[in-house]
Amino acid sequence: MTNKTAAFLIIGNEILSGRTKDANLNFLAITLNSLGIDFREARIVADIEEEIIDAVNHLRQKYDYVFTSGGIGPTHDDITSESISKALGKKYEKNQEAEQILIDFYGQENVNKARLKMAYLPQGATLLENSISSAPGFKIENVFVMAGIPKIFQVMVEKAKKHLIQGKKEISKEIKLNLTESTIADSFTKLQKEYPQVLMGSYPFSGGTALVFRSTNSKILEKSLKQMIAILEKIDPNAIVKN
Amino acid sequence: MTNKTAAFLIIGNEILSGRTKDANLNFLAITLNSLGIDFREARIVADIEEEIIDAVNHLRQKYDYVFTSGGIGPTHDDITSESISKALGKKYEKNQEAEQILIDFYGQENVNKARLKMAYLPQGATLLENSISSAPGFKIENVFVMAGIPKIFQVMVEKAKKHLIQGKKEISKEIKLNLTESTIADSFTKLQKEYPQVLMGSYPFSGGTALVFRSTNSKILEKSLKQMIAILEKIDPNAIVKN
Repeated sequence: MTNKTAAFLIIGNEILSGRTKDANLNFLAITLNSLGIDFREARIVADIEEEIIDAVNHLRQKYDYVFTSGGIGPTHDDITSESISKALGKKYEKNQEAEQILIDFYGQENVNKARLKMAYLPQGATLLENSISSAPGFKIENVFVMAGIPKIFQVMVEKAKKHLIQGKKEISKEIKLNLTESTIADSFTKLQKEYPQVLMGSYPFSGGTALVFRSTNSKILEKSLKQMIAILEKIDPNAIVKN
Repeated sequence: MTNKTAAFLIIGNEILSGRTKDANLNFLAITLNSLGIDFREARIVADIEEEIIDAVNHLRQKYDYVFTSGGIGPTHDDITSESISKALGKKYEKNQEAEQILIDFYGQENVNKARLKMAYLPQGATLLENSISSAPGFKIENVFVMAGIPKIFQVMVEKAKKHLIQGKKEISKEIKLNLTESTIADSFTKLQKEYPQVLMGSYPFSGGTALVFRSTNSKILEKSLKQMIAILEKIDPNAIVKN
């Protein structure tokens, strides 16, 4: 069975204006990797309904899972839930369970119109509980809609896990060298051709290069890694930086 | 005249695997904002030719400028220049000027096949000089192709600036409150409707809410801001957090 695939849609003017640095993508990447789900693509769009609809419709058809962050709060610039209802052709309506959560958290008398907006979701949504500030995220079909605030995003991802089919986890190994990329490029390319099951990447850093080997097959991964180490020792016995 | 629009395409398995945190998007966002160019969308794709071609062709048709990061080094996983040549229907060929830069930097005898790969660009590319490690980025039509390493990305963005048509800069003002979003949501929404020329966003933080006002028209921006401050002082004279 092949691994499930996933994409991430970040919704937020504040990221594109440079006001805020996204802090969720890396968390989601590490989580999906740990579950054996292939994270294939991410997009960042502004708080514009048409852009959200286009992106979510493209991504949900192309990938098994789509995660979104941002735009599910109480103010007028929070348009994610309504946009996703439209994208999926679902009625945007008050969710009784979500309303009750808000009433329990704020008290009946404090659930004003703005707060109640956070209970409006696509018809048929399954809630993703928010233990921090109550207003839930949700799952609708293969789309998981979560808050942009990193702490809340993270608890919602935790709740989303039970809906995800886990796959074969990719193992990652790394060799650090004090050589430039171009010194090892030819041998590295030859090795990649020899091991199509291993994804090999080369990442320069100040003073050297990191070679990353990724595969779901640990035996073949180790074999290719050993071969690369032997090649490197021939080029320069001191090439490998010990951690 | 309306402002030019821009998109950013991040090319890199290492971002999607969670190994590396992107550090270029926020820099580009702030730079574009300072030039009066509207940054509308970003995408992150893996080192897969078809994905790069699809994304770049979509973005270059939709926006005035497309910036890319990553995948222009000497190793086999660096496929950006060739993919972009294909996307634009340009020949992927040795650029004489880029080759000379590499020879001057490394010395003729040290320009091996891997290094020379960094001189292969789409036919007709204009170089974006790299004062750090020599191998240049480039501009081809409305696409600006840059390195993923933040320091090098930044010098290339600096070089790209002279090719960009600047627009009217958006001014941004912020009010910090010790109130929750839902307390001010109704008044804030009403104000947004009254001032369509001002883009108003609300961002909760731990202990309060930041209201962000953005507009290219400073007079109208100030007017709407003053009105919001008056509204807030009525709700609670101590609502505004002084910096």
